[in-house]
Amino acid sequence: MASKFADRLAALVDERRSQVCLGLDPDPAKLLPGIAVEADGDAPPAVLAGRAVAAHCRELIATVGPHCVAVKPQLACFERLGPPGWEALAAAREAAREAGLIFLADGKRGDVPVTAAAYAQALVGSTATPWGEVEGLGADAFTANPLLGRDALEPLVAGCEAAGAGMFVLVRTSNPGAADLMDLPAPDEPFHERLAELVDELSGRLLGEGGLSGLGAVVGATEPAHITRLREMMPRSIFLLPGVGAQGGDPALLGAAFKPGPAAALVSSSRGIAGAPDPAAAAEDLRTTLWEISNA
Amino acid sequence: MASKFADRLAALVDERRSQVCLGLDPDPAKLLPGIAVEADGDAPPAVLAGRAVAAHCRELIATVGPHCVAVKPQLACFERLGPPGWEALAAAREAAREAGLIFLADGKRGDVPVTAAAYAQALVGSTATPWGEVEGLGADAFTANPLLGRDALEPLVAGCEAAGAGMFVLVRTSNPGAADLMDLPAPDEPFHERLAELVDELSGRLLGEGGLSGLGAVVGATEPAHITRLREMMPRSIFLLPGVGAQGGDPALLGAAFKPGPAAALVSSSRGIAGAPDPAAAAEDLRTTLWEISNA
Repeated sequence: MASKFADRLAALVDERRSQVCLGLDPDPAKLLPGIAVEADGDAPPAVLAGRAVAAHCRELIATVGPHCVAVKPQLACFERLGPPGWEALAAAREAAREAGLIFLADGKRGDVPVTAAAYAQALVGSTATPWGEVEGLGADAFTANPLLGRDALEPLVAGCEAAGAGMFVLVRTSNPGAADLMDLPAPDEPFHERLAELVDELSGRLLGEGGLSGLGAVVGATEPAHITRLREMMPRSIFLLPGVGAQGGDPALLGAAFKPGPAAALVSSSRGIAGAPDPAAAAEDLRTTLWEISNA
Repeated sequence: MASKFADRLAALVDERRSQVCLGLDPDPAKLLPGIAVEADGDAPPAVLAGRAVAAHCRELIATVGPHCVAVKPQLACFERLGPPGWEALAAAREAAREAGLIFLADGKRGDVPVTAAAYAQALVGSTATPWGEVEGLGADAFTANPLLGRDALEPLVAGCEAAGAGMFVLVRTSNPGAADLMDLPAPDEPFHERLAELVDELSGRLLGEGGLSGLGAVVGATEPAHITRLREMMPRSIFLLPGVGAQGGDPALLGAAFKPGPAAALVSSSRGIAGAPDPAAAAEDLRTTLWEISNA
């Protein structure tokens, strides 16, 4: 296993000819057909829902995983089930690992430095206790919110360096409201370009041998007009592009993100895959579309 | 119990003559003296650490709680222990409830609208499942990151409306790096003033009968120069002021935050209380200082 996230990802993209990132946003009320959970005496709803979500994630990874290079669990969807939700998240991580997939924890964490260090422990590190070391989630990469500034990103970057992990910093998200703040002039360029500069400045820290950096950026696929400029500003960072499918982003317009090479971007799809009549076919369609664009 | 967070808080501030918010940032390697965890066969380190953290939180709340109106668990510190950490968080919530304290979940969550709705379920709501409703954390209030814009805050506000809960939006945090982005001109006022405008626009949604709004703002106590202006811009919002003590903020300079009344701000202290030789005395000192300032 290569020691840097960017290199591990590039090898996997090359091997699988895929840049598809499977989003895991499980809703216990809308799981895959056929997910059964055995009745279990007096187990509370959260425990049963947690087991069902774990089964859903395993099934989705087994079916769709071969067309993908990564899975991206949305932490909120697990967090809302309490401790059984975190058990389900660990189960999804195990399934992803067995399927050879990158595990990208999407929690958009960000906090003051001392707390950011605790998030790094939670996501890609471990925590020393008098009873022994407690392993964190063991993610390969995670998403991070940069609003609190450079000193707040620093402990996350350090955690990635130590773990050979990657992180994707929010630069320009895919929701319509992203324009409210991230597109403000600040003062001579949009605020999201300031975020891009910050990402680029830090990108050397997680640079792989292949020239790509695991200090990546979240850039919404819903605004392709931004992608060319942001790629120029962050020539080494791997992009995570959410927003195709349900949010309206068109994969055909994402070519600029792949300028540094086929492993320079991951395209995330959640409802577009899990909610399709044939999830594996939906993932394969997206895979071939992206592979062609990225090699054009 | 009043139905709005702002009114519940105001009643408690009046009753306890306190604006102290006890920060819970438990580090399993630095717990209170005398926290013992029984050896338990082959229980893994995470389980033992989770029990110890729960015992630490209970002890701290029992000792210090009477001087405070709220406790603020730092979610990262629980998250790094995995499922046993979330069990410890639920134990802290129970202890806070028994002690009559506001439970303020500090996770600085923020995400695109569909995911923000899941965070609202996790923090102050519940989740429908085929096995019954799964209750979330049951927090009275939480912190939120506004970077993704107004549509991303909306589901969080709606969740608070439904639950009678409050939320504190990051406006100007207490770390030095906060200046990197939040103080940028954007273009005719600092970026944090844009955030303040957003908070004020939404504040009517969580307005209590007493005139204060549970749509609050996190304003670092380390930069008192900002507080006067931000109070003018957000006259109704309850402020959460972190950064006194270890981070250098001086409680004596926080008077402007209390201009609308004694319940208009909470001052959070974590290491300054839990790390003091006599935590209860440290909390009481902070309480009297703030009470005098807020009634000056």
